[in-house]
Amino acid sequence: MPDSGRQHHVVVVGGGFAGLWATRALAGDDVRITLVDRRNHHLFQPLLYQVATAGLSAPDIAAPLRHILRGQYNVEVRLGEVTDIDTAAHTVTLADGDAIGYDSLLLASGATHAYFGHDDWAGDAPGLKTLDDALLIRRRVLLAFERAEAADDPAERDAWLSFAVVGGGPTGVELAGTLAEIARKTLRREFRHIDPANARVRLVEAGARVLSTFPESLSDKARRQLEKLGVEVLTGAPVSAIDAHGFSLSQPDQTTRAAPGAKPSQIDAASGAGSVGHGVAPVRVAARTVLWAAGVAASPLGALLDAERDRAGRILVDPDLRVPGHPDVFVAGDLASVVQDGKPVPGVAPAAKQMGAHVAAAIRARLTGKPTPAFRYRDFGNLATIGRMAAVVHFGRLKLSGVLAWWFWLVVHIAFLIGFRNRLVVMLNWAWAYWSYQRHARIIFGKPDPPDDPPAL
Amino acid sequence: MPDSGRQHHVVVVGGGFAGLWATRALAGDDVRITLVDRRNHHLFQPLLYQVATAGLSAPDIAAPLRHILRGQYNVEVRLGEVTDIDTAAHTVTLADGDAIGYDSLLLASGATHAYFGHDDWAGDAPGLKTLDDALLIRRRVLLAFERAEAADDPAERDAWLSFAVVGGGPTGVELAGTLAEIARKTLRREFRHIDPANARVRLVEAGARVLSTFPESLSDKARRQLEKLGVEVLTGAPVSAIDAHGFSLSQPDQTTRAAPGAKPSQIDAASGAGSVGHGVAPVRVAARTVLWAAGVAASPLGALLDAERDRAGRILVDPDLRVPGHPDVFVAGDLASVVQDGKPVPGVAPAAKQMGAHVAAAIRARLTGKPTPAFRYRDFGNLATIGRMAAVVHFGRLKLSGVLAWWFWLVVHIAFLIGFRNRLVVMLNWAWAYWSYQRHARIIFGKPDPPDDPPAL
Repeated sequence: MPDSGRQHHVVVVGGGFAGLWATRALAGDDVRITLVDRRNHHLFQPLLYQVATAGLSAPDIAAPLRHILRGQYNVEVRLGEVTDIDTAAHTVTLADGDAIGYDSLLLASGATHAYFGHDDWAGDAPGLKTLDDALLIRRRVLLAFERAEAADDPAERDAWLSFAVVGGGPTGVELAGTLAEIARKTLRREFRHIDPANARVRLVEAGARVLSTFPESLSDKARRQLEKLGVEVLTGAPVSAIDAHGFSLSQPDQTTRAAPGAKPSQIDAASGAGSVGHGVAPVRVAARTVLWAAGVAASPLGALLDAERDRAGRILVDPDLRVPGHPDVFVAGDLASVVQDGKPVPGVAPAAKQMGAHVAAAIRARLTGKPTPAFRYRDFGNLATIGRMAAVVHFGRLKLSGVLAWWFWLVVHIAFLIGFRNRLVVMLNWAWAYWSYQRHARIIFGKPDPPDDPPAL
Repeated sequence: MPDSGRQHHVVVVGGGFAGLWATRALAGDDVRITLVDRRNHHLFQPLLYQVATAGLSAPDIAAPLRHILRGQYNVEVRLGEVTDIDTAAHTVTLADGDAIGYDSLLLASGATHAYFGHDDWAGDAPGLKTLDDALLIRRRVLLAFERAEAADDPAERDAWLSFAVVGGGPTGVELAGTLAEIARKTLRREFRHIDPANARVRLVEAGARVLSTFPESLSDKARRQLEKLGVEVLTGAPVSAIDAHGFSLSQPDQTTRAAPGAKPSQIDAASGAGSVGHGVAPVRVAARTVLWAAGVAASPLGALLDAERDRAGRILVDPDLRVPGHPDVFVAGDLASVVQDGKPVPGVAPAAKQMGAHVAAAIRARLTGKPTPAFRYRDFGNLATIGRMAAVVHFGRLKLSGVLAWWFWLVVHIAFLIGFRNRLVVMLNWAWAYWSYQRHARIIFGKPDPPDDPPAL
């Protein structure tokens, strides 16, 4: 319990949905808050794939944390990377050596992508979690078409025009659908030696169906919408190898549509990452651009706490989101492993916001000596976009797909984007993109250093 | 002269104002054109300082060359870096080894910033020519305020709040004016340990006055407008040293306003870069952020031609913009050294566009066996922006400054921005920035690798 003589100090690590929502919920409380993030901005992650596919500029979906919180005078924003947490001394240490004392700590540093023991794939199959990731993917995709245009050898050209997205969850579906639209519509007429519409976009999923958290009927609709956009959907197809020139599948019949209800055999923990050794020779696919949307692992900061973690590195928290044995330490968002009614609470933005707000309430309860309440996730539904005029929505008994679902998705996402200005610009960009098929951010920048860019042959 | 049997092939190196305008002017001609650029976009350089100061996103001021030229079927755009030019064999070689033959060659690879023998300053005083430069400067400026906020030592804090721009030309004036606005207005209320308004922004000019290509009365007005915005203008102040912690001036009385008509003594070729050794001890100024806007040098591609060059590396061309001794090779834009009526044609966008269009006309003349005309630069005037509601305009006998000049500048720049969409977004951003003092692109990204970022103390 905090000293009674001075103001309770809350340290929040991470300015994502969980951390930011907790911070804002404490605006009217008699606490002082230090929000630490290693980036200067809150990122609206649900639209990150739009930055990766050149539909939006990076600043369109991000806002400086300082700016968001400028009027909340009980908050101090600190740019810094947490390197140590001492729960006995109640301090968080930053990379620059500064130690920050806390009375309550909220660890909400989120998740990163994971390769499940195949970290060597990271260079050849970048994942999508940060703005830097998005800009790297954008550069690779745009450069692939440039390399194809310049290629003399037909096999080389085809390999540059071959794209694969590993992982059939929402991010994988969004990326694959948008890549197909870029190839078929956006780049039309711009090249002289290639027809971008000949590009092949494969969505590779180890499990039996895409969007496995949705009802099976919507997975099926999503698959059909993807195929209509020009994506080749490969299910029951675990990837066994990835390098700069392509990837291998450990199942030979990956083009067969999985029968409804088929069990994902031999699949690793996460979709897309499979294990070799079916007794069948792996199928090799040439593709110079492979994107990774298959696996998520908790932020490494979770390991700084003396606490039990699940396989993905998430911290198993008590029902009130506290870390067992550490009554002053809360965990929220993608770093928290919460099971409710026998099902894990999903790693989505609404869950993170709700957890953040709950932690604020729990801290308030502690300050007034009341018991901390248990967290209850309210599932308002699930939605995923697929591409132009294509999406799936699942809200209770409501199941939508196609154009209506897409409009629904659009309105929800614009409404949730932080800040009036960003909303306006995003709407403008989308309206423009809708009419023109154009994507305004098709600008390659960033230094082309070897580990980032695909080597020219 | 080209073979009569096949289509004349024009190779244009550089998709800036000169190269792009030449390419577009040849749209209706019986030639085929290959436009080579090492970047995929045309950049509207006059607004680059807005990207550096977080007012615009990078894609707002750039457009893919392929997209601009998609409907011009006699053009092929090639992403690539030129490594060799063989005027005897009529070929241009790219970094990937491909050699492109030409009948006419236009070299329009522009300019880069130059440190006049002080290349070791480059890391501590970045210049502004490309989008990558702009994003680096943006990151440094935003990080400087973050470092100041986190600093415990007052001297360290002050050094992080000390900004300097070297070079009082249009770019230096724009950067300094905008930095002062960011410190005084944009960041207001966002920090808890520092007051950004206490930041010092110095504009350091070796010559007697800022904007030396303008009439003296307008230089004077520009200086007063800068001072009103909070910039400390130091003229007659050549920089003699720059490192990560600050810079040195070789003149002791740099704060004195230079008398009108005072000669810039001991000044190096370009403004801002001076020589040491006045017999007076140099003045040392602590500043963790120094930006370089003092010198321009021609693109190194000029050295690939066997041609005479001026001190800045620009190629001395014939009156028709051809390279002496190379009747098939033209040079236009910032790489061309053209003297007209005893005065050099300035390195500004209108001159580059005019030269580009002229080269197109000259190539057309060659094809029909007519003599190539001489280039004449039409000077429509000169304008420079200083900051919010402050600019100077010089058109013939018209001299404007202040609000009216600023509106004039705004309209001209929006009108010239390529593409309807960019114009709309830029207008929206500016309208928003005007009412809110906000700058939407205050997002730090890019990997913080040591040579790019200022080290923490």
